[in-house]
Amino acid sequence: MDAWLHSRAEVRERRGLQRSATPQGTVIDLASNDYLGLSADARVIEASTQALHDHGAGARASRVVCGTNQAHQYLEEQLCLLTGHDSALAFSSGYTANLGVLAALGGPGTLMIFDAHVHASLRDGIKLSRSPAVEVPHNDLNAIAAALAGRTQPRAVVVLESIYSVLGDAADLAAAAGLCATYDALLLVDEAHGIGVAGGGRGAVAAAGLAGSVHVAATATLSKALGSQGGAVLGSTLLREHLVNTARTFIFDTALAPAAAAAGARAAAIVREEPGLAAALLRNAEVLAQRCGVAPSAGAVQSVPVGSAALAAEIATELRLEGVSVGCFRPPSVPDGVSRLRLTARGNLTAQELDTGTTAVARVLAAANSAAENSAMASINHGKASNPA
Amino acid sequence: MDAWLHSRAEVRERRGLQRSATPQGTVIDLASNDYLGLSADARVIEASTQALHDHGAGARASRVVCGTNQAHQYLEEQLCLLTGHDSALAFSSGYTANLGVLAALGGPGTLMIFDAHVHASLRDGIKLSRSPAVEVPHNDLNAIAAALAGRTQPRAVVVLESIYSVLGDAADLAAAAGLCATYDALLLVDEAHGIGVAGGGRGAVAAAGLAGSVHVAATATLSKALGSQGGAVLGSTLLREHLVNTARTFIFDTALAPAAAAAGARAAAIVREEPGLAAALLRNAEVLAQRCGVAPSAGAVQSVPVGSAALAAEIATELRLEGVSVGCFRPPSVPDGVSRLRLTARGNLTAQELDTGTTAVARVLAAANSAAENSAMASINHGKASNPA
Ligand SMILES: Cc1ncc(COP(=O)(O)O)c(C=O)c1O
Ligand SMILES: Cc1ncc(COP(=O)(O)O)c(C=O)c1O
Repeated sequence: MDAWLHSRAEVRERRGLQRSATPQGTVIDLASNDYLGLSADARVIEASTQALHDHGAGARASRVVCGTNQAHQYLEEQLCLLTGHDSALAFSSGYTANLGVLAALGGPGTLMIFDAHVHASLRDGIKLSRSPAVEVPHNDLNAIAAALAGRTQPRAVVVLESIYSVLGDAADLAAAAGLCATYDALLLVDEAHGIGVAGGGRGAVAAAGLAGSVHVAATATLSKALGSQGGAVLGSTLLREHLVNTARTFIFDTALAPAAAAAGARAAAIVREEPGLAAALLRNAEVLAQRCGVAPSAGAVQSVPVGSAALAAEIATELRLEGVSVGCFRPPSVPDGVSRLRLTARGNLTAQELDTGTTAVARVLAAANSAAENSAMASINHGKASNPA
Repeated sequence: MDAWLHSRAEVRERRGLQRSATPQGTVIDLASNDYLGLSADARVIEASTQALHDHGAGARASRVVCGTNQAHQYLEEQLCLLTGHDSALAFSSGYTANLGVLAALGGPGTLMIFDAHVHASLRDGIKLSRSPAVEVPHNDLNAIAAALAGRTQPRAVVVLESIYSVLGDAADLAAAAGLCATYDALLLVDEAHGIGVAGGGRGAVAAAGLAGSVHVAATATLSKALGSQGGAVLGSTLLREHLVNTARTFIFDTALAPAAAAAGARAAAIVREEPGLAAALLRNAEVLAQRCGVAPSAGAVQSVPVGSAALAAEIATELRLEGVSVGCFRPPSVPDGVSRLRLTARGNLTAQELDTGTTAVARVLAAANSAAENSAMASINHGKASNPA
């Protein structure tokens, strides 16, 4: 195994695809998913501290053994109040929520139809479900309709994200839900980047008036706009009960830590009570997009394509040195093979931070682009085409 | 989908297999995995509270974007100090650690050989890896040797638990590691129920002198004896680097909440500094086993087989009414199809709790057994055999 690990490391090194997981100093954060700044909100910290003292640092057991406590119930209530779904079931992460619901709904009798841009956790859930599966092109409703119309399985699930994690664009949930109603399928919407962002914070499913529809369920994570850790499946009480009894990542996983559950619950209550938070986020997102020279996306995430994986990494490093943190997404982490910067707005960015941050981004991007043009010119002068990927 | 969910619910109801996830009142806890009582330890709570205030309620991003902070580094250091491995990589849960490492080591070139009793998360990881896989009978070294000897793949991983989660029995790690060295394979040991328990708390891999061996890696969870939430992969720095670059549940998952990381780190330090904790746990485990009439297991978990799924549920409910919480494991959550009570000892059970708890268990078990005998007699009198499963 060791020789193989060595050879894999060499390949990454050669391709400039090495990743690292080390802490960063104090920076202007244009990379995190803490879209409303709630991770450090005093009310969230207080609720979390209280749960830590009341219930301990861990939940001690699976939810179905003796790991369920008041913090989980309160979290599930708050998520229902925020999003308008009838029922919620908390998981230890958004990742395990996605794995759990897809594996529990899947099998040979369920066709999974999924957008080409859906998150790794949704793809893994579909794999685990051992369902027949069809990948459809990004945001292609006709392809979804064709897959639904042509299916031979008794059941089908259409898997989308309300706001996509890398490109930041939105799905047409109303149209997709319409198709699911027509073809008696379930629309499963991952609201990881929708909750706290779309619909005044209530998410895109609520904004489309689809919460509570029998043909629509959703998943949420507490780790983005809700500033904590954890995940949930949102839908009917029947779905919740099915998951309590069959979702492997629910039954065989230790329950979410009480402190994380309480933080997420308090954050959900704040988002519900203060729709101005989501509005401030979207204003900052628009400024961010404009200053980076891209069309504003549907949410907090702004996507800036750059020429190559190496260039994307270089730009991100350069910005880091200037004290600005941005995401750098390269193959295989990008749905479309295009290396890019992934910038995120936050509602609590100050005008000064936004200005300093976007000025640095604009300057480094412009410098990189002109350098790339020069080297393209040089390549042409040497009779070689430059490599765009 | 709804009609199908209804029909599944009816089947569960009919079979007496309904699960619930509701909180329990104050009880004598013979069910949780908080083996050393560290979840409520004042030092653990203090460290966790500090991290909550220093770093916020959530990590805000993936470890490879900007989610890594000092709490994660400190956790990884403490896990290395405790277990003796060269390197550690923290995940959001034990479940995602298992998924991540198996999928990252697997593929068509890797044969996965796994014990029939391994945990759902390990099975799911093997599924996700799309590796060729062989299930071997429980604790059958000859079957492992045969699978290794006959393999056609360049690489192989042998997947075991050091102490099994449901039966509480131990794997022969020295022998398995010997086989892996002979056949150039990797032994991957899930230490979920070994850390804090075996080897004076350092785990069964350390106890067998195998930490740091090039043929051995391990996974850990923070959610059992370490009283928190989270998971880790333990092994070489080369393995860690491979996972940072390829493990999907690491790259595409929000980093572990700082409060959970800090709690687990502090707990690991306490376990290392106070080997008496693990010793106290094992003493209580022995008393628990004796009072329940079973041979003591290798760790905290004691397994008490009972006749049927319905009877197991009945006994657990009866004990709950008496204020004693025990685990009740029924198909499909049991590796061998035998319904059972799963009782766990804790190092911090008082003599009085242990006495009250085990007295209740012994009484309810005896009553259930004599009732079962009577009904078996009745069956025989009516010319029918009783159903043992
Ligand atoms: C769309 C999407 N779904 C699910 C997840 C997983 O959520 P979590 O990080 O809480 O496990 C993420 C991000 O990590 C995501 O972007
Ligand atoms: C053997 C084993 N491995 C892994 C896990 C998963 O760990 P976690 O609950 O921390 O996700 C568990 C229990 O939940 C377990 O018993």
